[in-house]
Amino acid sequence: MSLPPLQLLAKSDRRLKQGHLWIYSNEVDTQKTPLRDLAPGDQVEVQDSTGKSLGVATVNPQGLICARVVSREVRYPLNKSLLAHRFKQALALREAVYDQPYYRLVYGDSDLLPGLVVDRFGDYLVAQMATAGMDRLQDDIAEALQQVLAPKGILFKNDHSARSLEGLEEQVTSRGDVPEQIEIVENNTRFWVPVHTGQKTGWFYDHRESRAYLQRLVKGKRVLDVFSYIGGWGVQALVAGAGEAMCVDASSQALDWVQANAELNGVADRISALEGKAQPGLKALLEAGEKFDVVVMDPPAFIKRKKDQKSGEAAYYHLNELAMRLLDKNGILVSGSCSMHLPRARLTELLRSSSRHLDRQLQIFHQGGQGADHPVHPAIPETEYLKAQFARVYR
Amino acid sequence: MSLPPLQLLAKSDRRLKQGHLWIYSNEVDTQKTPLRDLAPGDQVEVQDSTGKSLGVATVNPQGLICARVVSREVRYPLNKSLLAHRFKQALALREAVYDQPYYRLVYGDSDLLPGLVVDRFGDYLVAQMATAGMDRLQDDIAEALQQVLAPKGILFKNDHSARSLEGLEEQVTSRGDVPEQIEIVENNTRFWVPVHTGQKTGWFYDHRESRAYLQRLVKGKRVLDVFSYIGGWGVQALVAGAGEAMCVDASSQALDWVQANAELNGVADRISALEGKAQPGLKALLEAGEKFDVVVMDPPAFIKRKKDQKSGEAAYYHLNELAMRLLDKNGILVSGSCSMHLPRARLTELLRSSSRHLDRQLQIFHQGGQGADHPVHPAIPETEYLKAQFARVYR
Repeated sequence: MSLPPLQLLAKSDRRLKQGHLWIYSNEVDTQKTPLRDLAPGDQVEVQDSTGKSLGVATVNPQGLICARVVSREVRYPLNKSLLAHRFKQALALREAVYDQPYYRLVYGDSDLLPGLVVDRFGDYLVAQMATAGMDRLQDDIAEALQQVLAPKGILFKNDHSARSLEGLEEQVTSRGDVPEQIEIVENNTRFWVPVHTGQKTGWFYDHRESRAYLQRLVKGKRVLDVFSYIGGWGVQALVAGAGEAMCVDASSQALDWVQANAELNGVADRISALEGKAQPGLKALLEAGEKFDVVVMDPPAFIKRKKDQKSGEAAYYHLNELAMRLLDKNGILVSGSCSMHLPRARLTELLRSSSRHLDRQLQIFHQGGQGADHPVHPAIPETEYLKAQFARVYR
Repeated sequence: MSLPPLQLLAKSDRRLKQGHLWIYSNEVDTQKTPLRDLAPGDQVEVQDSTGKSLGVATVNPQGLICARVVSREVRYPLNKSLLAHRFKQALALREAVYDQPYYRLVYGDSDLLPGLVVDRFGDYLVAQMATAGMDRLQDDIAEALQQVLAPKGILFKNDHSARSLEGLEEQVTSRGDVPEQIEIVENNTRFWVPVHTGQKTGWFYDHRESRAYLQRLVKGKRVLDVFSYIGGWGVQALVAGAGEAMCVDASSQALDWVQANAELNGVADRISALEGKAQPGLKALLEAGEKFDVVVMDPPAFIKRKKDQKSGEAAYYHLNELAMRLLDKNGILVSGSCSMHLPRARLTELLRSSSRHLDRQLQIFHQGGQGADHPVHPAIPETEYLKAQFARVYR
């Protein structure tokens, strides 16, 4: 079965040859191979301007990124067999680093599977498809995962708004029964993860290493966990011996899970919750004269698109300044950002600026990033997004 | 006692106000305050162009960097008292992170002590001064260290060539007896450190976190440690359960220490050494058909000055490509660089390029950097220099 061709303009193959997987619509020779003849999710043979084959891509004719390479060899299109091969490769990396079956198993482009994310929660998997090409392969994905890992259930949690960019509907389905809450272990700490009702896949594995680092610093300390979600930082700090942790989140449901997770680890006597938005919440703490030894500031992405740059940077600046003001002498700020558009050096610059404004000294003593289950593809800068700057704030 | 003034030109105070500590000679108003009137090591009161005091700096009239700020308040010049205060602040950070007294206690600018490095080896300290201002304070430094830490001995290992930039001679002296070799512990591994005859202060604490990360990956593996020096990576890998480690270094003396350190940890039966330069050494291993599961490539700085950029990058490229060729299926490359002039993204790009040339896939699954005892000063990018990229190499 031969695939329809998608021919690139001269020199438009350069990025692909460097290892990148994306093709932009203005790079296609639409005279020779009109995109309009293709349906979203079709697989095509990508060719350079001389007709030389570069591999296989899935397409989305309406998208700015109109095609994503899924294979470098035209005899191996993306199907159940190639999926199973990629899953095994992805699994080998995770098993080389992690002892327990709790991690992101598939991280899209970096695992050569653009548009697919799979998180593993022990016997259960939660998958998300962000492209028409992956969406169409849902059955193959399920079967290949079954073949490689034999999970008890797979949840296809396709309810994220980014799907609309590919003309896909929001839709949650499952294979096998997937419970409402699943127990995982991260850094010696147990968590109930609400996979159906939580954010994204239910859990954020990406900060795992930075949370482990936090655990080294908190013995006997008072910790504030801002944008706590279900307690990832705060509960792990308590398990590592923190004297007290306060979780701030706007969602009462998230804070209920914080309580449940604290109980699960026998540290509920040392946790407290503050329901509300971060900025007014922190201001109220300031006015009450509260002080903390460690503040974790781990907000959602404030810069989702380039147009958010200015307002997003202002938000990072102000929240981190508030965090610094809440720190006791020789305090530690853990400042996270998952905005791909905020480079690490720029976050450091915002922290520097906040600290100068407050006339404090700052030392960045650890620079955390995404864990090994979110590897960076060296040709795709877009695969790197996560920062966790550990700063000592002193006078 | 009032200090002589050093007045800056208009707008030349901007960097200092952001927190940086360096003053370049072309930023000084030499009409009003001639540099030639000052002696190397003098302390001055820095003033902006309007005469407003910005703090205290030590000067070196001949240098491109002609002054370094040591205090923001003119009533607190750098003396024994301020040194002791800074040492206590520095110690507080190290003690917050490390259980054992083996670390860089003072990391120059980042600890607000430009020109001074102090490494702690338990009861002994090894200090290096790189500026005339610090050099002149040697007695105060010794006494302040004595006051804060009461070491058994301090070695002033001022034998590095950078001192010539400040017109300083190379000279090694000590306070108290400092033994030829001192035992330290890093990541559960013991080492004899040859403080008198080794490189720099005798040991490189900066890669500690990356070596700890390596330990998670090596169980039963065959590890190659290139530019091994006295075995930092290789011996730690063996202690963590590596099946075998081979250390490559051009110095037979360094390899003798590798052997001693392997014996100290009871892993000498699993270590081997290859004496020689890295490039021919790796080529010989390739020709012999040797394969490794993990290759650590941790060379000295190939880009010491901007003019070395091209040749240095070529060296990183070629050595890492050789390393990749020595890897077995699903192998791991740990690629280090201590060149401040090689940004992390550029090292990743060199690795990407090497891997494409070999038609291998690459995933950067961990990005290690300098440990907490080498904190980054957020206003001084020059304080950040160390990279350790962990890459899986596969087909």
